[in-house]
Amino acid sequence: MSVSVWLEMADEALFQFLHSEIIQYVNSAESGDSENGRCVSKLESMGFRVGQGLIERFTKDTPRFKDELDVMKFICKDFWTSVFKKQIDNLRTNHQGIYVLQDNKFRLLTHLSAGKQYLEHAPKFLAFTCGLVRGALSNLGVKSIVTAEVSVMPACKFQVMIQKM
Amino acid sequence: MSVSVWLEMADEALFQFLHSEIIQYVNSAESGDSENGRCVSKLESMGFRVGQGLIERFTKDTPRFKDELDVMKFICKDFWTSVFKKQIDNLRTNHQGIYVLQDNKFRLLTHLSAGKQYLEHAPKFLAFTCGLVRGALSNLGVKSIVTAEVSVMPACKFQVMIQKM
Repeated sequence: MSVSVWLEMADEALFQFLHSEIIQYVNSAESGDSENGRCVSKLESMGFRVGQGLIERFTKDTPRFKDELDVMKFICKDFWTSVFKKQIDNLRTNHQGIYVLQDNKFRLLTHLSAGKQYLEHAPKFLAFTCGLVRGALSNLGVKSIVTAEVSVMPACKFQVMIQKM
Repeated sequence: MSVSVWLEMADEALFQFLHSEIIQYVNSAESGDSENGRCVSKLESMGFRVGQGLIERFTKDTPRFKDELDVMKFICKDFWTSVFKKQIDNLRTNHQGIYVLQDNKFRLLTHLSAGKQYLEHAPKFLAFTCGLVRGALSNLGVKSIVTAEVSVMPACKFQVMIQKM
């Protein structure tokens, strides 16, 4: 195995382990809340700030984007690759401000078993990434609401609704 | 800038941002404790589990180590590089189970200002990494106590005391 492949694996593992630790810790710290709403919302805000920070570094030398679709393509390709080591598999839009980003093998779900009983935990494993996308878009001047859903693990869809100013 | 350099920067940024978020969150969640002892200890345990997980993946194809010093060299070189993108600058030992790992430019401190007033926050920024090293060593069969100190930021020293079984 080449050194760069090895290092890439290592980075991915580090991110996955940290992500799990965060979920576990936030979940226990917010355990007063039976609906897990507070846990999900904390994870989303952490993702938001990390997304803002990352995009600031990533786009320092990137030319300005020509439109909203151009921004979304950057998120699906460059941004996703840098964080998740793969691109979004499918991007769809209704051309009215809704974008659906489909990842057929989402890295932060691959270590969960595919059984139906784990589906209920999925929101916790997607919240950070929803925030990540919202934070990244926000720093590129695009205000949005980002939600996610899983149908069959580890595939999932992120829906981005652009909020017109 | 080449794609691989860009991706490496991205990974490093992701880790740094996540690490900051964790510190901030754990610090606020454990705020009942004025001494920050609980915050530091939570961060240390998170690091411990991440270190265990990482080393399991890293050493899958690594030949067995011939002795304790060999293990320490692996931590200073391969392990440190995979997590912090640089090697430990200096490794010293008293040959009686104490090792001092010096990093002259520790990545998780570089974004803190070098002012003396930040020194008091240093333990929080080092706890996760102390745990990381302890967890990695533990999975390699070496039980230890790991502490850290900063003299002049962003240089710091990790002291590993091997616990003989």
